[in-house]
Amino acid sequence: MSSDRESSQAIADERRKRPRIAITLGDPNGIGPEVVLQCLMDSRLLKFMQPIVIGSAHVLQVHAKALRFRDVRVHVVRQVPDEVPEDGIVVLDVAHGEKPEVRFGEITEEGGRLAMRAVERATDLCMEELVDAMVTAPISKEAISLAGYKDPGHTEFIARRTGCSEFTMMMVAGDLRVGLVTGHMAIWDVPRAVTQDAILSKIRIISGSLVHDFGIVRPKIAVLGLNPHAGDGGIMGTEERETIIPAIQRACDEGHFVFGPYPADGFFAVGGYRAYDAVLAMYHDQGLIPFKTIAFDSGVNFTAGLPIVRTSPDHGTAYNIAGQGKASPGSMRSAIFLAIDVARRRYTTAMQRIAG
Amino acid sequence: MSSDRESSQAIADERRKRPRIAITLGDPNGIGPEVVLQCLMDSRLLKFMQPIVIGSAHVLQVHAKALRFRDVRVHVVRQVPDEVPEDGIVVLDVAHGEKPEVRFGEITEEGGRLAMRAVERATDLCMEELVDAMVTAPISKEAISLAGYKDPGHTEFIARRTGCSEFTMMMVAGDLRVGLVTGHMAIWDVPRAVTQDAILSKIRIISGSLVHDFGIVRPKIAVLGLNPHAGDGGIMGTEERETIIPAIQRACDEGHFVFGPYPADGFFAVGGYRAYDAVLAMYHDQGLIPFKTIAFDSGVNFTAGLPIVRTSPDHGTAYNIAGQGKASPGSMRSAIFLAIDVARRRYTTAMQRIAG
Repeated sequence: MSSDRESSQAIADERRKRPRIAITLGDPNGIGPEVVLQCLMDSRLLKFMQPIVIGSAHVLQVHAKALRFRDVRVHVVRQVPDEVPEDGIVVLDVAHGEKPEVRFGEITEEGGRLAMRAVERATDLCMEELVDAMVTAPISKEAISLAGYKDPGHTEFIARRTGCSEFTMMMVAGDLRVGLVTGHMAIWDVPRAVTQDAILSKIRIISGSLVHDFGIVRPKIAVLGLNPHAGDGGIMGTEERETIIPAIQRACDEGHFVFGPYPADGFFAVGGYRAYDAVLAMYHDQGLIPFKTIAFDSGVNFTAGLPIVRTSPDHGTAYNIAGQGKASPGSMRSAIFLAIDVARRRYTTAMQRIAG
Repeated sequence: MSSDRESSQAIADERRKRPRIAITLGDPNGIGPEVVLQCLMDSRLLKFMQPIVIGSAHVLQVHAKALRFRDVRVHVVRQVPDEVPEDGIVVLDVAHGEKPEVRFGEITEEGGRLAMRAVERATDLCMEELVDAMVTAPISKEAISLAGYKDPGHTEFIARRTGCSEFTMMMVAGDLRVGLVTGHMAIWDVPRAVTQDAILSKIRIISGSLVHDFGIVRPKIAVLGLNPHAGDGGIMGTEERETIIPAIQRACDEGHFVFGPYPADGFFAVGGYRAYDAVLAMYHDQGLIPFKTIAFDSGVNFTAGLPIVRTSPDHGTAYNIAGQGKASPGSMRSAIFLAIDVARRRYTTAMQRIAG
């Protein structure tokens, strides 16, 4: 008993220092396995984490061969081991010993199924607290749809599986963090979807995440206007006056530190975002144009509001360059580091709660 | 007669080498006079141009004093001189010898009137071909409105005064040139205003300007989508399929080289704009967010389609820092250089027409 307890204490201590990070391989025919490989072949990462790849060991080997990576040593496991060995890549194989076909650049049902099986497993491992965070390589919407999955992407799937109804995607690059009120929606529908409640809900989630996941004690959030020049006092649109300003007021009344609405073009021009811990944009392109322009190759998606820690690179499957050694691992590496940081932060917060 | 002809030939030759550029001082209470002063105190500019400031010599002196600029020598003229002297700043005084009051940071009727009188005079000088281009320092909409001017800004005023109905603002920073289909308009109204005819009209103006003003023989124009991911095949908005793609097709049928529609976020992220001579955005923030993020402090507004050459810096009056020596002359300097380049280009084109 006593030695068991000591051993589990040692494991917990190690996980606080080097969190266990589940990394899903994504679509086998895209660049996911390639960027994961590139990250994990740099053994310096092991100082900060214990990586567990979730996917197919065979797929990983096919990519390694295509890229002419030598000496890729893989340890296939069926469960998360107590200690992650450091002399190779640990793969929790969800292909059940089968050898899925890799067809670079093609949308396949088999690819979609394999990719999502990894996401399911990683999510469950997070919920069971056998790992401390998950990082997801890109999947193809078409492929997972062929395989019968109805969700438009990772985020909705993971939210549903973890029983979470209030969440939001946050794009992170260093101290630049951008959230969206509306997402994949036509511009025509945006003004109707920008409601006080929608804005307030996003502010709450982002503010909470900044405290708990990023360790910011009194986070400051900047809110952008919907219209050019943030409506210019009502001359170009009334949503600022009727919706956005009242929502900001309500958020302030609740004790959040929220400012704006700011004209979106000038805000990013003068680096105004540096004075805030997060920026809330009203629609997809308003947030993603400046984010990608500023943070290309180092941007990370973080799903705020989930009970588990999940990050992902901000690129897609990039079928057109799959298997060619052209993919940059920059965004995946940033996603892994962010997962480590948030996992550690949550450990600290949990410890403080227990101590308190 | 003969010597007159020789002398006017010498003047014309000199203007081809060093175009006469009218520079309006803008609102006297903003940063306009300051950034003009900062540019013109660098005598190296005189190698490329003959500057004629249009405004009040007194206002210029007040700013020079506030900034503690010494040795600012001003030549007041009533008309454009044949030769612009190089040992001082030539000011064509539109205050008629009066000494307008300068009240830094304040919106005044007198300021609005003075600012617009300079714009009127500069426009007329351009139309009379007594100068080769005009560069306009920022004005205040409120101030010119107090002074009885109905136009929302420079561009509309100059277009009306030169009898031009088809024009478009183009933002220029090096090889990045961005045009807009819709401008100062609420997001709510944007989808309705994005019509095939509106897109086609902008493509024609921009394409013509790239040829005649920028000397690009076969200009390539990239068109952005209206919706996220350019509508993603109709899942997020139908405007791409119903409006933008047909407009691009019509433009191509007319012989323009037009490509797209491209998703706006990815387009700027990967520097995709470098492959095109201009980018046509569908709305204000879609074009201005990336432009200002990429080109801050060197961006220039160029009004394409006018019979005259007009540029301006891409900042406003910046009342909050007026008279404090904090304004950067970067954008004004870029505006002056662009005016010089386009004026020279038009001379060359005119010569080629005569020769042909």
